[in-house]
Amino acid sequence: MDPVIIAVIAGALCFAFAAFLAMYILRQDQGSERMREISQAIKEGAMAFLRREYQVLAVFVVVIAIILGVVPYLGWWVALSFVFGAVCSGVAGFIGMNMAIRSNARTAAAAEKSLNQGLRVSFRSGAVMGICVVGIGIIGLSVLYFAFHGSVDFLQIIPGFGFGASGVAIFARVGGGIYTNAADTGADIVGKVEQGIPEDDPRNAAVIADLVGDNVGDVAGMGADLFESYVDSIIATMTLATVAVVAGLASTETAWWLPMMIATGGIVASIIGVFCVRVGKKAEMSALLNALRRGTFAASILTAAFAALTIYFLGAGWGILWAVLAGLIAGMVIGESTNYFTSYAFGPTRRVSQASQTGAGTTITSGFANGLMSTLPPIILIVIAILVAHYFAGMYGIAIAGIGMLSTLGITLATDAYGPVADNAGGIVEMSDLPPEIRERTDALDALGNTTAATGKGFAIGAAGLTALALMLSYTQAVGIGFGDISLLDPYVVAGIFLGVLMPAIFCALTLNAVGTTAFTIINEVRRQFREIKGLMEGEARPEYGKCVDICTKAALKQMILPSLLTIVAPVLIGLILGPRALAGFLIGAIAAGFLIAVMMANAGGSWDNAKKWIEAGHFGGKGSDAHKAAVVGDTVGDPFKDTSGPSLNIMIKLMSIIALVMAPVLVSVGGLLG
Amino acid sequence: MDPVIIAVIAGALCFAFAAFLAMYILRQDQGSERMREISQAIKEGAMAFLRREYQVLAVFVVVIAIILGVVPYLGWWVALSFVFGAVCSGVAGFIGMNMAIRSNARTAAAAEKSLNQGLRVSFRSGAVMGICVVGIGIIGLSVLYFAFHGSVDFLQIIPGFGFGASGVAIFARVGGGIYTNAADTGADIVGKVEQGIPEDDPRNAAVIADLVGDNVGDVAGMGADLFESYVDSIIATMTLATVAVVAGLASTETAWWLPMMIATGGIVASIIGVFCVRVGKKAEMSALLNALRRGTFAASILTAAFAALTIYFLGAGWGILWAVLAGLIAGMVIGESTNYFTSYAFGPTRRVSQASQTGAGTTITSGFANGLMSTLPPIILIVIAILVAHYFAGMYGIAIAGIGMLSTLGITLATDAYGPVADNAGGIVEMSDLPPEIRERTDALDALGNTTAATGKGFAIGAAGLTALALMLSYTQAVGIGFGDISLLDPYVVAGIFLGVLMPAIFCALTLNAVGTTAFTIINEVRRQFREIKGLMEGEARPEYGKCVDICTKAALKQMILPSLLTIVAPVLIGLILGPRALAGFLIGAIAAGFLIAVMMANAGGSWDNAKKWIEAGHFGGKGSDAHKAAVVGDTVGDPFKDTSGPSLNIMIKLMSIIALVMAPVLVSVGGLLG
Repeated sequence: MDPVIIAVIAGALCFAFAAFLAMYILRQDQGSERMREISQAIKEGAMAFLRREYQVLAVFVVVIAIILGVVPYLGWWVALSFVFGAVCSGVAGFIGMNMAIRSNARTAAAAEKSLNQGLRVSFRSGAVMGICVVGIGIIGLSVLYFAFHGSVDFLQIIPGFGFGASGVAIFARVGGGIYTNAADTGADIVGKVEQGIPEDDPRNAAVIADLVGDNVGDVAGMGADLFESYVDSIIATMTLATVAVVAGLASTETAWWLPMMIATGGIVASIIGVFCVRVGKKAEMSALLNALRRGTFAASILTAAFAALTIYFLGAGWGILWAVLAGLIAGMVIGESTNYFTSYAFGPTRRVSQASQTGAGTTITSGFANGLMSTLPPIILIVIAILVAHYFAGMYGIAIAGIGMLSTLGITLATDAYGPVADNAGGIVEMSDLPPEIRERTDALDALGNTTAATGKGFAIGAAGLTALALMLSYTQAVGIGFGDISLLDPYVVAGIFLGVLMPAIFCALTLNAVGTTAFTIINEVRRQFREIKGLMEGEARPEYGKCVDICTKAALKQMILPSLLTIVAPVLIGLILGPRALAGFLIGAIAAGFLIAVMMANAGGSWDNAKKWIEAGHFGGKGSDAHKAAVVGDTVGDPFKDTSGPSLNIMIKLMSIIALVMAPVLVSVGGLLG
Repeated sequence: MDPVIIAVIAGALCFAFAAFLAMYILRQDQGSERMREISQAIKEGAMAFLRREYQVLAVFVVVIAIILGVVPYLGWWVALSFVFGAVCSGVAGFIGMNMAIRSNARTAAAAEKSLNQGLRVSFRSGAVMGICVVGIGIIGLSVLYFAFHGSVDFLQIIPGFGFGASGVAIFARVGGGIYTNAADTGADIVGKVEQGIPEDDPRNAAVIADLVGDNVGDVAGMGADLFESYVDSIIATMTLATVAVVAGLASTETAWWLPMMIATGGIVASIIGVFCVRVGKKAEMSALLNALRRGTFAASILTAAFAALTIYFLGAGWGILWAVLAGLIAGMVIGESTNYFTSYAFGPTRRVSQASQTGAGTTITSGFANGLMSTLPPIILIVIAILVAHYFAGMYGIAIAGIGMLSTLGITLATDAYGPVADNAGGIVEMSDLPPEIRERTDALDALGNTTAATGKGFAIGAAGLTALALMLSYTQAVGIGFGDISLLDPYVVAGIFLGVLMPAIFCALTLNAVGTTAFTIINEVRRQFREIKGLMEGEARPEYGKCVDICTKAALKQMILPSLLTIVAPVLIGLILGPRALAGFLIGAIAAGFLIAVMMANAGGSWDNAKKWIEAGHFGGKGSDAHKAAVVGDTVGDPFKDTSGPSLNIMIKLMSIIALVMAPVLVSVGGLLG
């Protein structure tokens, strides 16, 4: 029996489990009419954005598919695989967001009963997304496997799937990120800073756009990101099969099965882990956090055990298990280190709060320095994972380490995707004039979500780094670069490294400016509404929420094009002009610098956010003090860092690497113009 | 005749010319008693700092010299060369700063007569420094050449000189940078933001410390930085002689002479260039700027011509001339691009001003994005320079391109070092109650200084990048790494690249935090004086300037240790633990990322500074508006970016590379623990 059948069964299990969770959620009470009304507005805004985003994406997918189809050495099967990957990514994003927008009001209503009930609804919503992402990923790859694994072009066709997933992901992450940040910044600057009204106040015209943004950015964008990492890491490992054979680790077929099977073990482990997230009826915050951690931890242990079984039954080399463990452990520790640098329970973020006492300038410098310093553990951990994995299982081992890190994605993504749902629930509570203790509960859920989101973000970046590196290695094999061919003494390799390091900088500049431009428009619109709509500030008139939603949608869709296209075009140009060796250097430069900058931005942003929360919790003068005002500036700077530019870099490095892999056959035949 | 005699003659010419300029300056009027008094206070503060800094450095130099002396494969000649390099660097810094602190009051007094007269005094002060730096550099290297060029260890001994220069430079740049920024930030936050008094107001207790900071940071620090680049680029080229011989470009001796002779040509060209900086008696701003540009441009053309003559007379390959031109042109264009991104005459910085209208948050994001985007031209230019130089003259060509870029240092540094003198003169005018039109004149000089400083900073970074790369190449040759030995498929090389990329981040985090900590102390001290000294705000009592000077000195000396030591220890550890191949990867990663981050920080900082000035010039509400307050926050963040962390990275990448080169014989024998 072909063991990939088991992967298909696990995929089917995912859908069944997700359906079970979804039915549970849909059975819950949606709350008062006002709550339904707000939830409906969010739903409409989010769906309108997704619809229009997918229209843009459809054009992009068709154009790229045609290019892939007509280019010699690639062809229509690669194009088909690409379209399939794009559709799978789109479906994963759609399901996740669809669930999130149906869960926000239900979470708010559940929080009226108890904190525990609120966690249950929101976490299950996140779990639907997490489980669906891995389910769709494994089923999609299985379909390709069964359709093509007999073909000689198999290893040329499957990277197309990853390219499709990555292509959709970059637009989703960048577009969603611009949307959510522009709305958030706009709402905060006019609402909190200028008018002095609370967060999510219904008088703020941008408040619905802000809540929509949480869904299109943090849910759909994050889902597309991790779907991409997930399938790309499996693809990278499969395409390195030859290397595994040479190293005597496995036969070609076993080397294909291993990543699928280890991932399958992770899926089962994640489902069991989700079941473990249970607390007593009257649980406190710490019990909730422990429950989430217990679930993730159980899933990790089980994944390791399943991996050992897989290796045993497939008769592969035991070195592979060490590579799995290297990735798994590195991922967990990176997550914890992110938490250390961004949570206000620890020194680094408290020092940012403290720096707020001397004004916004020192807040920024201090948070930025903290973000820079926070890159130390993740880079050291990735380096250790690379060296360990390579020592035990060679280049194939590095790819396997990526699989190890991502195998528990089902549950990790669940703990991450529930945050925005809780955030939305808090907004709905605020806008529905529910009693303050309910808001306190959703705030507690939100705070918990911030902790798990920080861990999840660190994990996403670590996974992206390893996956991209594995793809880069696959690329060198596919393009036939030997060990001595890409030397640091080759000026083209050095030129590639310099240009690669440049990419994340330009990409961030573009996305930061896109957020800035869009936010500027929103700010002016909200200011205009406060000025022109009579009785708005007194609560006698309603703002025109739709206008802000519309501005955000249009602007985000327009602004996402340039950075996304740059990411796609750059590796193609480097490869065709400077040649395949320069492209390898380019990828390494982009991966190393992209990883660094992504960690820095995510953690600086998280740290500013929580430094503000620490002040709001009554330290250094509390809400309304000068320190608080300074901390709000930090938060405004941090939002695009942590929600747009930083996470988009994850996708950028993977996308550029998989494009190199897809175009490898072309480069083999054509070569570079210069190098 | 040994042509290096010509280098000695050129060096002697430098001292004669510098003495001539210095005598001119010392003949000038020092202004009123009040002006002398202030100048005296600055002088005392600056000298006290330098004296204590040199005491710390003496300990460091002795310890490292002993280590170098006793380590097998290195020995006492290397140690001696190291001490000599350190002393030369110290002397260059001392002369430059000594001249600057004698010129500030004289510039102020000269500005009372005319703008032109003010430029003349301040520019000549900068020229003394520029000419002395190159003079000391070329004489020092000539001494080593004559003493050791017959020895078989010649190529092991001269890197010691560069290490000495680099070691002093890192402490000088970091210590001076921390000093100047902490004082500046402290003075600005309490003075401008909290108390609403003007810049350089005598009631501000930190004002003298701020003026001292300009001298110890911008003059002594910058001088040490470029002295290091200058000698390191020559050393790197000399140690690559074997490569040049293999490539058929020159004989070994010619390959040693070439860098010395091209640099000598640059010295003569620079002296002629300084003479070209002349304007009519009643010149306007634009005429002044044109005069400076004319000088630099003339020096560049002459340098190219001298280089052609050198190649002709030494009978070397003409490919070397192309390498010289690649570096020379890249340096000039990088300077111009820096100017484009940081001057308020152009779009990028004006957009930062515009973003200030929506608050400090958008100011920061916009300036940061601008800094990131500004890395595009320098990286593309460096890549082109590398490819062109390598195409025409191989690896030796890359080192020669560094020489080409730095050959006009004498005049470039002059245009850069005059800025802080003008800045100091402005402070003295403000504190001496001179009529506002005099302040306007010194402000004009200062603004001109900002433009040339921006160009100079871009140039310094470009030079550092090429020099460090050349040193890294020398290292690979010294350690005997062949072309196929440092592959991107080697996990140790990849690990090295990741760790190398990490270095600038950690380094910046440490320096930013050092500035923050020191500034915090100063802020509290200035606040205390305003609170406790009666009649201070009314101008009836004097603040205790000495206290702030003392705090800055102690804190800067304390805080400079950790980042400097990190830079020295990191490459040693990487080499000894992960091995020589990982060290090569480490250097490339650090150079590429360090270059990127240095450009980003310098330009973001410059852009925030000038965005504030653009608003102060009456745009978007002008001084005192909300936009202005937001822009001041940007400036506060930008100061440590552009004056401490960014420029220190220049030194970091060169220092780590030269340490690798110095320790190469050890690595050849011992190898790495793991790799």
